[in-house]
Amino acid sequence: MNSFGHLLRVTTFGESHGPAIGCVVDGCPPGLELAPEEFVADLQRRATGTSRHVSQRREADEVEILSGMYQGRTTGTPIALLVRNTDARSKDYDAIGEQFRPAHADYTYWQKYGIRDPRGGGRSSARETTMRVAAGVIAKKWLAQHFGILVRGHLSQLGEVLPEGFDWEAVEANAFFWPWSAQVPALEAYMDALRKSGDSVGARVRVVARGVPPGWGEPVYGKLDGDLAAALMSINAVKGVEIGDGFDAVAQKGSVHRDEMTPGGFLSNHAGGVLGGISSGQDVIASIALKPTSSLRIPGRGVDVRGEAVEVVTTGRHDPCVGIRATPIAEAMVALVLMDHALRHRAQCGDVGEVHPKIPGHAS
Amino acid sequence: MNSFGHLLRVTTFGESHGPAIGCVVDGCPPGLELAPEEFVADLQRRATGTSRHVSQRREADEVEILSGMYQGRTTGTPIALLVRNTDARSKDYDAIGEQFRPAHADYTYWQKYGIRDPRGGGRSSARETTMRVAAGVIAKKWLAQHFGILVRGHLSQLGEVLPEGFDWEAVEANAFFWPWSAQVPALEAYMDALRKSGDSVGARVRVVARGVPPGWGEPVYGKLDGDLAAALMSINAVKGVEIGDGFDAVAQKGSVHRDEMTPGGFLSNHAGGVLGGISSGQDVIASIALKPTSSLRIPGRGVDVRGEAVEVVTTGRHDPCVGIRATPIAEAMVALVLMDHALRHRAQCGDVGEVHPKIPGHAS
Amino acid sequence: MNSFGHLLRVTTFGESHGPAIGCVVDGCPPGLELAPEEFVADLQRRATGTSRHVSQRREADEVEILSGMYQGRTTGTPIALLVRNTDARSKDYDAIGEQFRPAHADYTYWQKYGIRDPRGGGRSSARETTMRVAAGVIAKKWLAQHFGILVRGHLSQLGEVLPEGFDWEAVEANAFFWPWSAQVPALEAYMDALRKSGDSVGARVRVVARGVPPGWGEPVYGKLDGDLAAALMSINAVKGVEIGDGFDAVAQKGSVHRDEMTPGGFLSNHAGGVLGGISSGQDVIASIALKPTSSLRIPGRGVDVRGEAVEVVTTGRHDPCVGIRATPIAEAMVALVLMDHALRHRAQCGDVGEVHPKIPGHAS
Amino acid sequence: MNSFGHLLRVTTFGESHGPAIGCVVDGCPPGLELAPEEFVADLQRRATGTSRHVSQRREADEVEILSGMYQGRTTGTPIALLVRNTDARSKDYDAIGEQFRPAHADYTYWQKYGIRDPRGGGRSSARETTMRVAAGVIAKKWLAQHFGILVRGHLSQLGEVLPEGFDWEAVEANAFFWPWSAQVPALEAYMDALRKSGDSVGARVRVVARGVPPGWGEPVYGKLDGDLAAALMSINAVKGVEIGDGFDAVAQKGSVHRDEMTPGGFLSNHAGGVLGGISSGQDVIASIALKPTSSLRIPGRGVDVRGEAVEVVTTGRHDPCVGIRATPIAEAMVALVLMDHALRHRAQCGDVGEVHPKIPGHAS
Repeated sequence: MNSFGHLLRVTTFGESHGPAIGCVVDGCPPGLELAPEEFVADLQRRATGTSRHVSQRREADEVEILSGMYQGRTTGTPIALLVRNTDARSKDYDAIGEQFRPAHADYTYWQKYGIRDPRGGGRSSARETTMRVAAGVIAKKWLAQHFGILVRGHLSQLGEVLPEGFDWEAVEANAFFWPWSAQVPALEAYMDALRKSGDSVGARVRVVARGVPPGWGEPVYGKLDGDLAAALMSINAVKGVEIGDGFDAVAQKGSVHRDEMTPGGFLSNHAGGVLGGISSGQDVIASIALKPTSSLRIPGRGVDVRGEAVEVVTTGRHDPCVGIRATPIAEAMVALVLMDHALRHRAQCGDVGEVHPKIPGHAS
Repeated sequence: MNSFGHLLRVTTFGESHGPAIGCVVDGCPPGLELAPEEFVADLQRRATGTSRHVSQRREADEVEILSGMYQGRTTGTPIALLVRNTDARSKDYDAIGEQFRPAHADYTYWQKYGIRDPRGGGRSSARETTMRVAAGVIAKKWLAQHFGILVRGHLSQLGEVLPEGFDWEAVEANAFFWPWSAQVPALEAYMDALRKSGDSVGARVRVVARGVPPGWGEPVYGKLDGDLAAALMSINAVKGVEIGDGFDAVAQKGSVHRDEMTPGGFLSNHAGGVLGGISSGQDVIASIALKPTSSLRIPGRGVDVRGEAVEVVTTGRHDPCVGIRATPIAEAMVALVLMDHALRHRAQCGDVGEVHPKIPGHAS
Repeated sequence: MNSFGHLLRVTTFGESHGPAIGCVVDGCPPGLELAPEEFVADLQRRATGTSRHVSQRREADEVEILSGMYQGRTTGTPIALLVRNTDARSKDYDAIGEQFRPAHADYTYWQKYGIRDPRGGGRSSARETTMRVAAGVIAKKWLAQHFGILVRGHLSQLGEVLPEGFDWEAVEANAFFWPWSAQVPALEAYMDALRKSGDSVGARVRVVARGVPPGWGEPVYGKLDGDLAAALMSINAVKGVEIGDGFDAVAQKGSVHRDEMTPGGFLSNHAGGVLGGISSGQDVIASIALKPTSSLRIPGRGVDVRGEAVEVVTTGRHDPCVGIRATPIAEAMVALVLMDHALRHRAQCGDVGEVHPKIPGHAS
Repeated sequence: MNSFGHLLRVTTFGESHGPAIGCVVDGCPPGLELAPEEFVADLQRRATGTSRHVSQRREADEVEILSGMYQGRTTGTPIALLVRNTDARSKDYDAIGEQFRPAHADYTYWQKYGIRDPRGGGRSSARETTMRVAAGVIAKKWLAQHFGILVRGHLSQLGEVLPEGFDWEAVEANAFFWPWSAQVPALEAYMDALRKSGDSVGARVRVVARGVPPGWGEPVYGKLDGDLAAALMSINAVKGVEIGDGFDAVAQKGSVHRDEMTPGGFLSNHAGGVLGGISSGQDVIASIALKPTSSLRIPGRGVDVRGEAVEVVTTGRHDPCVGIRATPIAEAMVALVLMDHALRHRAQCGDVGEVHPKIPGHAS
């Protein structure tokens, strides 16, 4: 299944080393202005080859809008986006065509389909996430225009390193989406040493959506947090999803966790902006855990298609920490889920919620 | 949206204090033997009123099978299950009809729909999970019969308390689904003190599915772990979901996290049985974080439907730790997702995977 | 698959001779007043046992609303409706448990599922349509309140008999939903003779929805006419669906068929109110062909579960013309499709259409 | 909504005069051999510019396979197909940018979206059906390989002209898909006169699928005939759908209509191969009514975007009978629905049906 979303429906296609990757965004309301240039910034944020800390594959990632537009505006018909692959080096993968790399999708795709495209990971490659980011550009713009919503993310942990401070301004000023500038040189040294060792490390990314109105989400099986969990868990290498305090809530007392409300606003935001699966008007906050890259220069034990033992050494171009580039991807998924729910809410409830007293979402 | 699953599709309905709750299980293959008695055990495990550590509401939870059966077997047509509500005490909630309790779905349902059923939390009550457990009984039985799969869960953290040992035998022998019997008296004392204080606490539940064949899951937007995340996050009070090592993977090195493979089997199971969104044949392992119950006897600040400040004290009958009864619910959701994916895999891939060499899933 | 609709989603369950039939209506907007009494009229129109021209099974068809309501209004949560079966005579079917009646679903259910409930046709019985009519009551009311839409139907052919005049007033004044009172005695004689002969006959039903605003329908695979076709073809015994002129359009010239438009309105309605899959503002008109009942007292050749020849004579209680009772069912399906599309249109397009000049839908 | 199918899911995109049209075919089982050349024949059958009796637009219709293949075989991942538009003449449409042509989707798209692409009909153009035919090539091949199913169609009425004989061999030997060669010169003269007059005419197309096993179809809302009705009604210009005898069944007696069964086979096929929404093993037969083309050189009354009266004369290149080219499109839709149901049946019922005695499907 290569589609997600209910009313805003995104379908992606393409393999890492195939001729192209693309997506179809169906259900976008008519009238949104959109130009190919608007995709450049976010795709660049996700791109490989932009610093020495990420994979060195260099793709132009030029988006061609194939449909759904007339005179610079969306028409309500499906928007197809296409990106040609230009820097695929399939010969790097010849050696592993019959081998299953440990902790990779190689083995499971083979077991499922009985056939797989081994070039660059085929469909399981993070290359696919390019199209999530592209689709996310549309959602971000629509949410900003219609509700003033701002969706942004940052790295909140790199290996064992935690931020020592927080400043949104810092996030876009370094290659790590790190929220504290003073730590950047240390992170660079950390990554250089890691790359030299041939090993990799995990990361944590946090996304915050500011300005989400109360009322979005469809209990009990289309909850906002449930859909966020599915969307975020579907990103390559993600092993965990938290809303608000997440796993920290396990050891909390109810008297601490509950976000009290006053006419002046909520007094805290442990819930991460979702109660009963519906947005509360506070910031919607989600965090994800990304595992360390599985493609290592350090030899590992694997098996081949005949079930025999092999020693696997992954050459090719890889990220020593896939989590770094995951920030724009996670933002995109959050934005797409929110836009889908904006439409779903409008369908069932119209503007009914807007007449009720709303509690300001501060303290989030 | 009150349905989930793609080929095995479960729709639930009903409110906490309405006349009944129920579900429709659509897509179950024909020929499965099923009797009303088979629902008793799991519903009892989820039930309130079974120990002093959970809510004291006492419901018979008698399941009536309304359709989809002939001479004791499923026929392939939709199976409707009905449970009448018998111990609803709606007057307990009179006081809060116009108040929004902090950290409850009260406020968000009101904002979304402009109307809500305040009796016992209405649709947002954990009462709805009765039907998840009932539907899960069907999935567990089918998975066991067709694949020998065993889905079971346990509490893996209660507040700040962690298990000091692990024994599956212990789990069903205490009111907490706790895997280490020696700690049970201490847990009872902990809960007694908590109940006396009027406060509540969070919990963590872990579910393990043994025997899942490799190949289940539909990348990239119907991944097994993505669907598990959605299903588990949709359970009341859940704030986080992990697959395998989950958030521990953040600080791991790739050389540690990757599960090496030999002809004799996997050497570890950090991945939790899922690679690239497809089952690997190892145990599928998922954990969830449950927030502390929001209904407390300790007064909290809230607002009412006019936006004015109120002090909220929750009487009624509540669990001091909702996580305790979440174990059978989480098991049910995992089983339902697995059965759905068993059918989805059969649809697209038939038995293609079965001819390939499989790596034993031990060391999980 | 026992659900239909995209945003207004109806799931039905139950067999002809099981304990109950029911449905879950999910996605209905909050705030709609609804009482059990409101289901009586339409269920009575569909009911058996109301005249000598239909099956003599007598069911109370009392609707219990199990969920989704608070203080007489819908809350936005799923509405479950239940009807107990009370007049099932399963012994009538003992003889045919191992036989496949010609032109019945007996053989195909057996081939599909390997098991079937033979009592009264099981799931394939027209009894299931009771719940379509019940769900349709909700849709009709909502469409009338929000858009002033009126959905009504009539028999437009009975065997070879065609109406000799047309009067909406007449339709509800006879047992045949026939639009011309003067013909009713002749129809009664026709049916009496048919019943005596042990044979059956087909019928045609026409449904007209007045007041549908322009803009509903989602090209190209959620077209209004496409969804109507699916909904109407899913009714028992339906073999054909037409929109507007339908098959008469085959022999028409374009200069005749095209509905010209003037500022004063459309000049004709050959299209049946749908252009390019989207409503035009004219009356939406659909017709269906219903085959003659297959259950006959006249012996017919069939086979049994062992593949051997049998002579089948159907006793039990049957309609000599199933098409007669199909009128309220067809109305219900049209209403449910329209309400679904009202919500879908609101989701994607908001109120954008309402600012454009609209052409009156007269001449329809 | 621009996707259809449940397990075999086709999403199309693109406008008549945009840069390209395309589709994504998701859910195709792995292992199917497929080459770009295999699309040529069916696309050519659907193409414009192939005879003087159809639109003179000449498109290369070269299919590029963008994804889902490895070494000439499908891999189970989504198959994206792209066709560039090369012969779009948008200036032909300048005049009608602000006019609504009678019986066209112009007015309804405008009402729905508030914006439309007027060039060549935009999304509502029959150009979109190119991708249905392309997707259908995959389904036809898969059905033939796995079940020996043959899906083919023919024109069964052109205006008031009916076939005077029937021969499948004749169908592909003339530009009309007409099943009787002797009538071809008369049809050519008929079309020449029609084209000269500036008028258009309707048509009827019939599709027959031979070799469909019993058991496909999911009652009661995923019936095989219901899904066929939706798929066929979604084709441009279609106003009616029949299964088997269709509207002829209205005037039939039950004793005539019912297809009796003997151990040697069915004795007739009035049902068109579907009973209770499930295939019977007989030929699946569907017919569609296509309205006459709305684009005429004969002036017609329309309105413009300001609601004022205009006289519309359609220049540009159009088919005087759109029904002629509809044959391969209808075949494609039937094939896609059948393949979807093959997968759905395998999911729920596995191979359960295959052990039962089957009645030969002859006499169909």
